Amino acid sequence: MTNGIRNHQVGDKVETYFLIKTSTKGTASNGKPFLTLQLCDHTGEIEAKLWGCSPEDEQAFCSQVIVHLSGEVSEYRGRRQMKIQSIRPTTAMDQVKVADFIRSAPISPDDMLDEITQYIFEMKNANIQRITRHLMKKHQTAFLQSPAATKNHHEFVSGLAYHVVSMLKIARSLVELYPSLDSDLLYAGVILHDLGKVRELSGPIDTQYTLEGKLIGHISIMVTEVAQAAEELKIDSEEVLILQHLIASHHGKGEWGSPKVPVVKEAEVLHLIDNIDAKINMMDRALETVQPGEFSERVMALDHRSFINHVSISLL
Amino acid sequence: MTNGIRNHQVGDKVETYFLIKTSTKGTASNGKPFLTLQLCDHTGEIEAKLWGCSPEDEQAFCSQVIVHLSGEVSEYRGRRQMKIQSIRPTTAMDQVKVADFIRSAPISPDDMLDEITQYIFEMKNANIQRITRHLMKKHQTAFLQSPAATKNHHEFVSGLAYHVVSMLKIARSLVELYPSLDSDLLYAGVILHDLGKVRELSGPIDTQYTLEGKLIGHISIMVTEVAQAAEELKIDSEEVLILQHLIASHHGKGEWGSPKVPVVKEAEVLHLIDNIDAKINMMDRALETVQPGEFSERVMALDHRSFINHVSISLL
Amino acid sequence: MTNGIRNHQVGDKVETYFLIKTSTKGTASNGKPFLTLQLCDHTGEIEAKLWGCSPEDEQAFCSQVIVHLSGEVSEYRGRRQMKIQSIRPTTAMDQVKVADFIRSAPISPDDMLDEITQYIFEMKNANIQRITRHLMKKHQTAFLQSPAATKNHHEFVSGLAYHVVSMLKIARSLVELYPSLDSDLLYAGVILHDLGKVRELSGPIDTQYTLEGKLIGHISIMVTEVAQAAEELKIDSEEVLILQHLIASHHGKGEWGSPKVPVVKEAEVLHLIDNIDAKINMMDRALETVQPGEFSERVMALDHRSFINHVSISLL
Amino acid sequence: MTNGIRNHQVGDKVETYFLIKTSTKGTASNGKPFLTLQLCDHTGEIEAKLWGCSPEDEQAFCSQVIVHLSGEVSEYRGRRQMKIQSIRPTTAMDQVKVADFIRSAPISPDDMLDEITQYIFEMKNANIQRITRHLMKKHQTAFLQSPAATKNHHEFVSGLAYHVVSMLKIARSLVELYPSLDSDLLYAGVILHDLGKVRELSGPIDTQYTLEGKLIGHISIMVTEVAQAAEELKIDSEEVLILQHLIASHHGKGEWGSPKVPVVKEAEVLHLIDNIDAKINMMDRALETVQPGEFSERVMALDHRSFINHVSISLL
Amino acid sequence: MTNGIRNHQVGDKVETYFLIKTSTKGTASNGKPFLTLQLCDHTGEIEAKLWGCSPEDEQAFCSQVIVHLSGEVSEYRGRRQMKIQSIRPTTAMDQVKVADFIRSAPISPDDMLDEITQYIFEMKNANIQRITRHLMKKHQTAFLQSPAATKNHHEFVSGLAYHVVSMLKIARSLVELYPSLDSDLLYAGVILHDLGKVRELSGPIDTQYTLEGKLIGHISIMVTEVAQAAEELKIDSEEVLILQHLIASHHGKGEWGSPKVPVVKEAEVLHLIDNIDAKINMMDRALETVQPGEFSERVMALDHRSFINHVSISLL
Amino acid sequence: MTNGIRNHQVGDKVETYFLIKTSTKGTASNGKPFLTLQLCDHTGEIEAKLWGCSPEDEQAFCSQVIVHLSGEVSEYRGRRQMKIQSIRPTTAMDQVKVADFIRSAPISPDDMLDEITQYIFEMKNANIQRITRHLMKKHQTAFLQSPAATKNHHEFVSGLAYHVVSMLKIARSLVELYPSLDSDLLYAGVILHDLGKVRELSGPIDTQYTLEGKLIGHISIMVTEVAQAAEELKIDSEEVLILQHLIASHHGKGEWGSPKVPVVKEAEVLHLIDNIDAKINMMDRALETVQPGEFSERVMALDHRSFINHVSISLL
Repeated sequence: MTNGIRNHQVGDKVETYFLIKTSTKGTASNGKPFLTLQLCDHTGEIEAKLWGCSPEDEQAFCSQVIVHLSGEVSEYRGRRQMKIQSIRPTTAMDQVKVADFIRSAPISPDDMLDEITQYIFEMKNANIQRITRHLMKKHQTAFLQSPAATKNHHEFVSGLAYHVVSMLKIARSLVELYPSLDSDLLYAGVILHDLGKVRELSGPIDTQYTLEGKLIGHISIMVTEVAQAAEELKIDSEEVLILQHLIASHHGKGEWGSPKVPVVKEAEVLHLIDNIDAKINMMDRALETVQPGEFSERVMALDHRSFINHVSISLL
Repeated sequence: MTNGIRNHQVGDKVETYFLIKTSTKGTASNGKPFLTLQLCDHTGEIEAKLWGCSPEDEQAFCSQVIVHLSGEVSEYRGRRQMKIQSIRPTTAMDQVKVADFIRSAPISPDDMLDEITQYIFEMKNANIQRITRHLMKKHQTAFLQSPAATKNHHEFVSGLAYHVVSMLKIARSLVELYPSLDSDLLYAGVILHDLGKVRELSGPIDTQYTLEGKLIGHISIMVTEVAQAAEELKIDSEEVLILQHLIASHHGKGEWGSPKVPVVKEAEVLHLIDNIDAKINMMDRALETVQPGEFSERVMALDHRSFINHVSISLL
Repeated sequence: MTNGIRNHQVGDKVETYFLIKTSTKGTASNGKPFLTLQLCDHTGEIEAKLWGCSPEDEQAFCSQVIVHLSGEVSEYRGRRQMKIQSIRPTTAMDQVKVADFIRSAPISPDDMLDEITQYIFEMKNANIQRITRHLMKKHQTAFLQSPAATKNHHEFVSGLAYHVVSMLKIARSLVELYPSLDSDLLYAGVILHDLGKVRELSGPIDTQYTLEGKLIGHISIMVTEVAQAAEELKIDSEEVLILQHLIASHHGKGEWGSPKVPVVKEAEVLHLIDNIDAKINMMDRALETVQPGEFSERVMALDHRSFINHVSISLL
Repeated sequence: MTNGIRNHQVGDKVETYFLIKTSTKGTASNGKPFLTLQLCDHTGEIEAKLWGCSPEDEQAFCSQVIVHLSGEVSEYRGRRQMKIQSIRPTTAMDQVKVADFIRSAPISPDDMLDEITQYIFEMKNANIQRITRHLMKKHQTAFLQSPAATKNHHEFVSGLAYHVVSMLKIARSLVELYPSLDSDLLYAGVILHDLGKVRELSGPIDTQYTLEGKLIGHISIMVTEVAQAAEELKIDSEEVLILQHLIASHHGKGEWGSPKVPVVKEAEVLHLIDNIDAKINMMDRALETVQPGEFSERVMALDHRSFINHVSISLL
Repeated sequence: MTNGIRNHQVGDKVETYFLIKTSTKGTASNGKPFLTLQLCDHTGEIEAKLWGCSPEDEQAFCSQVIVHLSGEVSEYRGRRQMKIQSIRPTTAMDQVKVADFIRSAPISPDDMLDEITQYIFEMKNANIQRITRHLMKKHQTAFLQSPAATKNHHEFVSGLAYHVVSMLKIARSLVELYPSLDSDLLYAGVILHDLGKVRELSGPIDTQYTLEGKLIGHISIMVTEVAQAAEELKIDSEEVLILQHLIASHHGKGEWGSPKVPVVKEAEVLHLIDNIDAKINMMDRALETVQPGEFSERVMALDHRSFINHVSISLL
Repeated sequence: MTNGIRNHQVGDKVETYFLIKTSTKGTASNGKPFLTLQLCDHTGEIEAKLWGCSPEDEQAFCSQVIVHLSGEVSEYRGRRQMKIQSIRPTTAMDQVKVADFIRSAPISPDDMLDEITQYIFEMKNANIQRITRHLMKKHQTAFLQSPAATKNHHEFVSGLAYHVVSMLKIARSLVELYPSLDSDLLYAGVILHDLGKVRELSGPIDTQYTLEGKLIGHISIMVTEVAQAAEELKIDSEEVLILQHLIASHHGKGEWGSPKVPVVKEAEVLHLIDNIDAKINMMDRALETVQPGEFSERVMALDHRSFINHVSISLL
């Protein structure tokens, strides 16, 4: 096999397997139908056009199908594009499976669960601990599979857990640096803040917003779940309210989707940590395929900025 | 008795009862303490200064006390002010009670409850009807007393119920005009949208935000209550989600406190009706003490605009 | 004939008449010219491509021509598109006329005029009544034909009158609910607020902005016309000024085109009613071709929101 | 007499005449009334407090009265204040008149009129020339007296004419530099753009907005007047429309009060010239009483900036 | 030769020379490569498509090559496009040179230098004069060639010098009109404000931002250069700081790229003059190819406005 | 001595030493002068009024004087105020010194310098290391004394160094978590980003902006200093440019004072770290004197939010 799409250069000849992520039919200016295939492997994605496709092709080359393809990496409007020479759907004979073509977190779900469990174990406040453990347990399976978003950052298998684990590490270093921070509250906030995404998003592959996601969103979902957990665990104290506030306010501002702005110190810090991990991840993603000295594509969620892949200063 | 504070002019001599709404201590430039009293009756409010007050005065003239006062209406920086000639706390002998001094809705709570009940009765969808009836019943007593806000509009006893009844009337006329509107959904949205204020606000007198109000707010409170009601009533259908969406989105935009913008037609219409009733109420309030041909004070919540009390055109 | 474009599904075979709304020439990537035809009937619109067109085709298939067409409804980038199998211009023999292909208000112009006349008749202030009647009479013919906009809402024959009639009905219900509202002023404001559109827009078919519309706009046009009407009728009183204010401020904010923000209560209410009728109309338009459970295209003028066509709750 | 308020320093003893611009009654913390007098001469203004005033004082020291005063310039919260030692109203014996105490343009009205007339005379397009001359003639007396604003810039007698003359000079230099500019249009725009202020403002002393100014504003007033002038002069050509556009758009943006943004080159240039003259005038005004090396008070209309009175570079 | 691209109408046959400004490869829907050529002469630009190009064509028709072309001006999506009938690269035999095809300032570099030198000569403050002369001398060659921007305004050979000369003329007329303005400071600010563009931009042909331009920009570059010049010339006085402030603040606002807003009067005026010259230039550019009575394309940098090419009023 | 101002409650009798931070003269409504004294010790500040002060008092009780005072902590408009019973300036006999009354960083300057030196020592890129060391050395004395701001955060002696040390610790933990980050660049950015404040601010006591601070600001100052250091050290490589970019962009947005937005990953991270340390410091400062369960005053720089001092969750 190859070293993955991400590392291919324009001009490379390719003969390998890909997963079709999405397949969209169009009509060319000569009136004939064609398919726009978004192909992926575990390292990245590339677009390909299948010109003059038959109705059978439409059936065969649809989303989630693994194909074998010969082609060449070309360029179109500044983006790499795969020029198809031949393409065929795979069969059992090819011995390939979908999981091999999907990007996932660099740490295994089990290891991440262990790490999160350790943070819960360290909590000193029993109410916070019980609510956090209860909700993690309730959604554990989905949580360990879920991406953290449909695009922009952590949009891969187990992306949500990976986002949480990274944030916990930053949280710990801030708790050490600023002793006035309440660690229980901050860790619980990190673990629960995006947990509602297991109901907001459709799952790790071809991720879409669910109806619930579109109508009420992961913040309202999780504020409600905390209330229900507290009821079930018969906890009725101020901690519940503060925990709900952390979740409700973690987007930081009304225009970013939070019904309340942070008025608890740990809520503001939760928002800042979320911001850091998401932004570094977005920049890493944008720079991944950029040559040294060149600028990335514009990143919508970072004010349409384009980032330079500068020379590695520390290694000069 | 007089015809109320609202109708007093500068220069009027006054000898009557007032309720102290708030009492704040200050220090004058001669170093002596004084009290700033916010006095009210059922028609409005006026400020008074009690200069050179003793520690006993501080005790005697505090919030919620009814006083008997002789004085004169003067003017300070364009606002009316009560100049105190004599003031004393009342006793049982005076036979006055707090309720007589508080502004309340022009319709009785019982009549408003009947009217709302009628709208619930008319609902055709059983799930919507049961959830609405369940939540109204649960909070009925508080709902019929609660103001709709701490200031700006409907900030009086039963203001919340009065706001809902007015909105229901507008809703009915729109349902008649636009047949595509779903009446059940719109009526339920109107009845429930602000119900969380019974937990967000402290009650009808000297209304404050509760801790819960400050940390999560009436929108998140009510989205959660709908979920809990549905669970209790064993209703698990799309209506629940849409009802939660109506509540979540009724402020119209993220920067106005809604975690989701309206994407259901009735949610947008709910927001528009809420807007109309609140704004007309605010303008009426601002114009209440303005002489014909004059402009009101600036209304913060209406983009700091000042409104003219124009001549009554239809009566010319 | 068929039941109209709006009700066609992808895959439907079509053999019927259409009106060409616009025809735009392009060059395909093979260097050959083609026409993009925007076809319409009285229920809606659909795009079609005429590939490899001759100079004669360009002449024949231009705007305002009625054609007979055989084809199939296909889909392109999520939008329905008409795939042309054969197309020909019609002749007198076909016995079709343009009026049959144009969308118009669901009430007849005469009925709408009667209704508006009734509101004018009810006015108690003679000056307001005379100005309103004078201007309605002056522009009556154009007013009854004019759309209310070039796109977004009420963009059809008699759309302006239909918009006014709907607003009058809302105005009446608000006047009943809020007795402090001045009905004469509000009704006159509703009737006149957009009347300048008869000079701002080019007319009901293929509606464009006139030079006057682009350079000064319907608000300035109408503020001027009220002044001229008052002069002609020898009315010189405060009502004229307030009426001009209602027109000038009815967009609500400077950034929405109003040279003055509303400072008269009825001006604010006029703006709110205008808003309601326009927004409900836009949502109805957006949802018109959306399947139950699906989301509409994004509506530019409603903050780019996409609306769900939810199940009809009241009918469940 | 002295060299004027503007040049007084803290600590200066003063014995001279002043005009009372405004007189406002207040109540001191000892319960006694006092007057806040805004005193002015032709160079500037200063505030004074008249403590413990009698009802007779209130009558005597009201707006537009000239007083004779002995006192000392002191400082309060960073602003100069006049400490009154003795004060008395003047009589005929004092031989002082209001006109001597009012700030006015540095050029005489007659000279300014001559200058403007010259620009009108130079116009080559008869329609533009006739409309401009007609409107200047109609409002000539008020125009030559009127200030250009109630505060911020050119808020003095003949300020409007002075603003126009300055702008005409800038306009001429731009016309010389950029030959593509249409001089007739630009000069007419400059002369007419703010002429509506003669109806928007109450006049040169204690300038207020008129009802007409508040309800429709000088832009709508003037757009209407151009239409009426054209009608009267029987001119019906595109020039009228473009002239109205220049007036309507001269504030540059909707949020700054223009119902249309400039889409004619001369309209944009008119806005830019207006901007320059207003801003330089505001900065000069703010810096007028500032010591070298110090910063001025914040100027609201210039984004709350504070300007430095730097050393005179060219003279070093 | 012809009278230039700018003056060609749709339908014109063309047989002439062009310079290829940019050449971009694409793939047509039939899978074949094509070139999009941006062609220019000294009057303007036009796009052309070279369909079905060979690898040799790609080599031959690249940026900076002069070609000889036969074709016809057509229209595509409202823009003119050159339809190529035949095209060939030129050789020495054609006797054409790049300089003939490039737009440049209407005044010669030498004349502009003379004019700027005159302003420097007039300066009375020796420090300001020496710094200005030093920096002009240092960058003289690049300055006289450089465009003032990559697009929008003065994006041609010597555009920067032309922009400076125009601004100096406006500055002089303002200095005459407002005697409080410090001419030395204003002239020096005009001459130096954009001088950093000689390092920010790559040069006059196919202008790009340099790495330095992207990372720190012409404002920071020039603030630094003034500090270095002052050090070198051993000038250590307040003038240096004020000069740096003029450069730093000349974009007027933080969101337009200035690290400080203007707090020196001449800094604000510098910003206003810069604005005027840039905006008039942009409008002239936009209107250059527009027929009388028509509207231009939308100008991004002028709030997306479209300007009308109105009839020449002064010539009617 | 006492345990400091910060810990005093309303009603406490106080007899101790204070430093006068600022002293401002006012005139009471009885016409007599008074002094508003801002008193401080090493824990916080409190305001006091000295009524009826003599000219000698004005001389004696000025900024930077240590006084001995008997008084009582009272409350005025929700803020604590010191009611003076007796006050006298101190003499050598009192054996008190200014340094004892000033707030400073909780770590000694020497320890902070050691820590920063260690980070410089670890740098692998010689150019980055040399520039950082050069500039730290150049400004070392001022840097170790300087506050980081005039208010809001780190506004105390050595506040700048303390801010840098905290940020370095966060930087190190992020470098460990995200291996793609270039540590040399990030550490150098942290150390240098605010170093220009030693020229922007007047020093640790009664901190003001210098003229240089107001006219060009610490960002432009430092971008220039890096250029000058590189010149002196004969370093001419891309690292210099990137380092300047980090400094120029560290406020994150144009409207927050950065002439360039971050386009280098480490620049964005530098901005995020700066944000975290500043915001946590501001919240700690705001909550410092707030009782458990109460809300703080509104914090201007944190969107006017008020923060709750919630119960210590981890200790429940």
